[in-house]
Amino acid sequence: MIPQTPGVHPAWLPDAALATLGAVDTVVLGDGPLVDTVRAEVAHAATLRGGEAAPGRLTLALLGAVPDDAPEPVLAAIDAAAGAGLGEPRGTGPGEPREAAADEASSTLGDEGFVVVRSGTPQDPTTTVLAETGHGLLHGWFHLVREGALALGGPGAQGARGPEGTSTSTASGTSSHERAGLSVEVHRPTHDLRVLDHWDNISVHPVMGQVERGYSGGSLFYDDGSLRPDLGKVRQYARLLAASGVNRVALNNVNVGRREAELLTTHLDDVVALAGAFRPYGVRVHLSVSFASPVVLGGLATADPADPGVQAWWAQAASAVYAAVPDFGGFVVKADSEGQPGPFSYGRDHADGANMLARALAPHGGTVHWRAFVYDHHQDWRDRSTDRARAAYDHFTPLDGRFDDNVVLQVKLGPVDFQVREPLSPVVLAMPQTRVAVEVQVTQEYTGQQKHVAYLAPQWTDALQARPWGDDGPAVSDVTSGTSRGPATAAARTEAAASGDADSGAGAPRSAGGGLAAVSNVGDDVFWTGHPFAQANLYAFGRLAWDPTLTAEEILDEWVALTFGDAPAELRSTVHDLLSGSLDVYEQYTAPLGVGFMVSPTRHHYGPDVDGYEYTAWGTYHFADRDGVGVDRSCATGTGFAGLFPLDLAQTYESLDTCPDELLLFLHHVPYSHVLHSGKTVVQHIYDTHFAGVERVEEMLTAWEKVAPLADPDLAARVTERLAEQHRSAVEWRDQINTYFFRKSGVPDERGRKIY
Amino acid sequence: MIPQTPGVHPAWLPDAALATLGAVDTVVLGDGPLVDTVRAEVAHAATLRGGEAAPGRLTLALLGAVPDDAPEPVLAAIDAAAGAGLGEPRGTGPGEPREAAADEASSTLGDEGFVVVRSGTPQDPTTTVLAETGHGLLHGWFHLVREGALALGGPGAQGARGPEGTSTSTASGTSSHERAGLSVEVHRPTHDLRVLDHWDNISVHPVMGQVERGYSGGSLFYDDGSLRPDLGKVRQYARLLAASGVNRVALNNVNVGRREAELLTTHLDDVVALAGAFRPYGVRVHLSVSFASPVVLGGLATADPADPGVQAWWAQAASAVYAAVPDFGGFVVKADSEGQPGPFSYGRDHADGANMLARALAPHGGTVHWRAFVYDHHQDWRDRSTDRARAAYDHFTPLDGRFDDNVVLQVKLGPVDFQVREPLSPVVLAMPQTRVAVEVQVTQEYTGQQKHVAYLAPQWTDALQARPWGDDGPAVSDVTSGTSRGPATAAARTEAAASGDADSGAGAPRSAGGGLAAVSNVGDDVFWTGHPFAQANLYAFGRLAWDPTLTAEEILDEWVALTFGDAPAELRSTVHDLLSGSLDVYEQYTAPLGVGFMVSPTRHHYGPDVDGYEYTAWGTYHFADRDGVGVDRSCATGTGFAGLFPLDLAQTYESLDTCPDELLLFLHHVPYSHVLHSGKTVVQHIYDTHFAGVERVEEMLTAWEKVAPLADPDLAARVTERLAEQHRSAVEWRDQINTYFFRKSGVPDERGRKIY
Repeated sequence: MIPQTPGVHPAWLPDAALATLGAVDTVVLGDGPLVDTVRAEVAHAATLRGGEAAPGRLTLALLGAVPDDAPEPVLAAIDAAAGAGLGEPRGTGPGEPREAAADEASSTLGDEGFVVVRSGTPQDPTTTVLAETGHGLLHGWFHLVREGALALGGPGAQGARGPEGTSTSTASGTSSHERAGLSVEVHRPTHDLRVLDHWDNISVHPVMGQVERGYSGGSLFYDDGSLRPDLGKVRQYARLLAASGVNRVALNNVNVGRREAELLTTHLDDVVALAGAFRPYGVRVHLSVSFASPVVLGGLATADPADPGVQAWWAQAASAVYAAVPDFGGFVVKADSEGQPGPFSYGRDHADGANMLARALAPHGGTVHWRAFVYDHHQDWRDRSTDRARAAYDHFTPLDGRFDDNVVLQVKLGPVDFQVREPLSPVVLAMPQTRVAVEVQVTQEYTGQQKHVAYLAPQWTDALQARPWGDDGPAVSDVTSGTSRGPATAAARTEAAASGDADSGAGAPRSAGGGLAAVSNVGDDVFWTGHPFAQANLYAFGRLAWDPTLTAEEILDEWVALTFGDAPAELRSTVHDLLSGSLDVYEQYTAPLGVGFMVSPTRHHYGPDVDGYEYTAWGTYHFADRDGVGVDRSCATGTGFAGLFPLDLAQTYESLDTCPDELLLFLHHVPYSHVLHSGKTVVQHIYDTHFAGVERVEEMLTAWEKVAPLADPDLAARVTERLAEQHRSAVEWRDQINTYFFRKSGVPDERGRKIY
Repeated sequence: MIPQTPGVHPAWLPDAALATLGAVDTVVLGDGPLVDTVRAEVAHAATLRGGEAAPGRLTLALLGAVPDDAPEPVLAAIDAAAGAGLGEPRGTGPGEPREAAADEASSTLGDEGFVVVRSGTPQDPTTTVLAETGHGLLHGWFHLVREGALALGGPGAQGARGPEGTSTSTASGTSSHERAGLSVEVHRPTHDLRVLDHWDNISVHPVMGQVERGYSGGSLFYDDGSLRPDLGKVRQYARLLAASGVNRVALNNVNVGRREAELLTTHLDDVVALAGAFRPYGVRVHLSVSFASPVVLGGLATADPADPGVQAWWAQAASAVYAAVPDFGGFVVKADSEGQPGPFSYGRDHADGANMLARALAPHGGTVHWRAFVYDHHQDWRDRSTDRARAAYDHFTPLDGRFDDNVVLQVKLGPVDFQVREPLSPVVLAMPQTRVAVEVQVTQEYTGQQKHVAYLAPQWTDALQARPWGDDGPAVSDVTSGTSRGPATAAARTEAAASGDADSGAGAPRSAGGGLAAVSNVGDDVFWTGHPFAQANLYAFGRLAWDPTLTAEEILDEWVALTFGDAPAELRSTVHDLLSGSLDVYEQYTAPLGVGFMVSPTRHHYGPDVDGYEYTAWGTYHFADRDGVGVDRSCATGTGFAGLFPLDLAQTYESLDTCPDELLLFLHHVPYSHVLHSGKTVVQHIYDTHFAGVERVEEMLTAWEKVAPLADPDLAARVTERLAEQHRSAVEWRDQINTYFFRKSGVPDERGRKIY
């Protein structure tokens, strides 16, 4: 049975996307719960078969379940797969024993990989998907669904990178070969840990509500204090996640309230129920836990990680969880951050804290995701020496090498907080002895709260595909995958040089990477994500977590093809175009040049308030005065943040001559008359981008109006309503930002446009 | 039985304040519930008699209850009282019949007046208090309590205006005479309506809480959805109010929620219970009602005031209320304001709406308090032509003469919203055919929320005692008392001149004045008002409502003498001094020169946020740019607000040469370099006052530290805690305001002090 809820939007798994596959004669070989899931998928697809069957044959098989008398193309596929391992293909001729071939293939595929082998003719194609596990087979199935959708309903002009592409990432990911007349593709996820964090509360928080930073209605899991009795939508959600690539879900908010803390103990049955809903699609569950649990839940006098009683309490708690949920994933911890308890209370550091939890989980194979989001949230705005952007670096880099193997340090993408434009957090590049995960925010807290269209994938691909050590160095995703942690940072190199230890900080990775994590944007909304187009962000996160070498455009093509595959081409191409440049548009009409914030604290990070954070304790300032604006984070005259990056990048950031325009005000305080690389002054850039941003929203409105009648009426109404609000809000941003800087600078707009 | 609650601070009625009177041999003559209350007061005071009885004799008597064989001094007092009527004393010699004398006296005293007649020698003094009603007798009792406290425990150097003072207000109030060797004082309240509005919710509001703008804990009346079962503290509160002069209480928030609306109908029993608690002290209850009640409660299709069914509904509702609460006071209405329903929805005006309710109440003697706080709260900040300060004037002055006699138009003191410094609302001066009440805010919404010491009486006396038509014209309190509504306003005169009707707008009052109203600052806090010193504001409101000619210092002397009468003189004089200049201090460190706001919307009007309202829909802007600041409300170049006042005052406000410094930015937009009458530039004034304000708070801290050990420890702890917060907040105000204006103006402080 495929979980589908009447009235709920099917997102990227509409029946239309399955119908093509459903027309193919399909066999599934193997046993086990996830193989059963694949069988259910195949059976469901078959019910969608419209007219005649399609030609050819599809086999989905566990490597160990192919009988000796299987059809010849399937047997040949095993041989081919064995030779298509990652790295250098190894000769495995047709004469070798089949069992050895299967072993060979399986060793290359791991828990979630699969291989697709194609043969035959266009009139009689044969496709065989082989995997070591049911989970791999399920990924193979969704891969074929995606391929089918792209073949049928791509967005038109934009050519997607098809399955025959030849990109091969260094450690894992997709590789394609032609072998003995067969086309062979091997797929493995780049990151083993692809985690979606839900900031869901069980008891409604008086300020933050049911879902903290949630813009999609209530929680999928909880309703006003307890678990929802019907988890049908959770099963449907698990299926969507599996098809995107996500394989882990943290079930509760990192700010852990009393009721939520009890998931670990007295309400473990809630975890059992949710794990049961996710399990058929291979998604494992994690819990956010309170560091104070031994006190709050256990009645101990302390939560000191050095206390044997505390250690024993956690060990017992972990054992109890695994007894109930054998595939439990682990703990997520926000400690010593924004009021959450942590090891600092006991004079311990974050390695002490994380390792204590890791040792409780280790016997069961669990992981600690320890968040690096630690800073002084009681900063005095008068204090110019403290820089929140440095905080995680200063806290964590001294601990590199001290974390246990099953600890992942989860670092927000930007050094401050999920703004539309920030540099990469330098922590990611400075912990070579630590498993580092990059955390992105799928929920649009600072990027329009699912009222504005903002397709975030370009921000993530820019970051993950960047090569901060230079073009011949590793990419950021090599750090998160554990392939390479890169050379030492500039700072570490400097330190090493000073201490005479040239190798310091440049060590090889000790273990696997930390993967990716993201804050979910999903709620009980009928479109899952408030704005229907925000589904694309969730989908893109899963896809990039699986393969960070994909481009944002490729993923967008996939999402449009899957979601709108049976819609007219005009609608598909318009949806594609609306999303494609949307983050640029959002950036144009909001805070300029990387300065960030300027957002309303009152209305929860939505809408403009230029001085809204300027005199607060949050460490997020722009320092605008009558002469200029921006934060001096240079080494020469500022907080030194620019120097935390690898040397070349640090030098690029340090100098006004080379600092990229889009990050200028994040890194420097400059006069309004400063001339950008674009040739414009800062203040004229502000005016121009803000006028242009609103104009582009108006173009989006016009484009959408033309195709809205082609869309499902409910979806069309929702998008129309959201675009109207985006336009209202964009005008407000434009006028407040422009007025603010005009009043402060006194510089008139060169083009004489209306500023208030 | 005197209502006293263990652990609750006795405010201005500690037993110590009654002990002196308790030592005097006292007789009470008369019958009725309020006379019984007086008897209970006397009996309670007698229990406090410490050592020996004091010499002399006190008689408290209803005029009709003095027997022919009463002691001679009492009989003589009646004769004397009869001759002490207001206006010209009339000869009533000892030979005239006593009954006629009593009639004469009673006709001058009204419902609440009393006369105090003294005779005898210091060794054997005789005091007789006579009144027509028990209510008057109760006021006489509290008058003696006050006198006794002042005689014993005045604040020291500050001499209070004693009972032998000779001030005589024109229409009512206190008058003193020496007659036939007797001292005779007649006391009558200046305002019949002295109303305290509670903004208490029954069901806790999700944003505004149990008490909207309440800073003293929960509601005295309600707790989380229902009436408190024990109304003992309400009875105690009624006693305090009676001793201050307040005689009406509105029981619920002017923003009327569903549960609160039902007080009128299905929950009328709550009103009955509360009225029963207030009645022994002569305090009548009013209700805030929703204009939409016929729809919300009655199930009618409309609340149109012209609809006969709606009129009948209200008439029936009023009848039902009076059947249950015969001394019910009437309705308070906030209509068409900040989202509340009103007559505009039906194409009717506010006279239509108010009169419809007035006609429902008229048969029962009830009054409608109709609030004039009507403005566009969805203003576009880009719109410079709309001026919230004009809104009530523009809405209401065209309706002058159209309100029924039992309608009171309740006008906030300032034209915007209870800021620390505003001009008087011009509406008060421009409605000669309307009963106008001035509404002040005892709760310190914008004046430090009972965390800061801010004795508000000077603001109120400045306004009430002002003579806006010139020194020989009436005072503002003559308008609220109904004695004189003043000559026509400048605008009305101009209009009248244009139309050739020289008398237009200058008519004599049609009926009594509207009195005073205030928003209460009381909650279930053990000190009643959060900050113990905020009790003085509540006390001062009642006293000024009774007699608006009192000075703020006189009232402060009374309050200190009553509240701290048995404390060491050093404590009393320090408390007096802390309060005396406190509003000036608060003004110094907050928004400068009458510009108002600059307060945090986020944190509910507490703490600085200079641009917090600048781009909002609330109509409260300062328009600061790099050159200057302030709102141009002149007639010449601004919104014309300045011209809404009587001519001379309008001219004073219009010209920069004559506009008072403290209102400059309320009325004009000026450059930072503008030189004030004080000789300072605007920006230097801002710096100087903000540094000075914090210095004065530091002086307050030092002064308090010296005397705190002399005070009750609980009270001392509370005051110490609040002063610390006031200091922290004042520093924040100083630094944010100074930094903001320094960043904008670029003008350095002349004295080189630290600005960030």
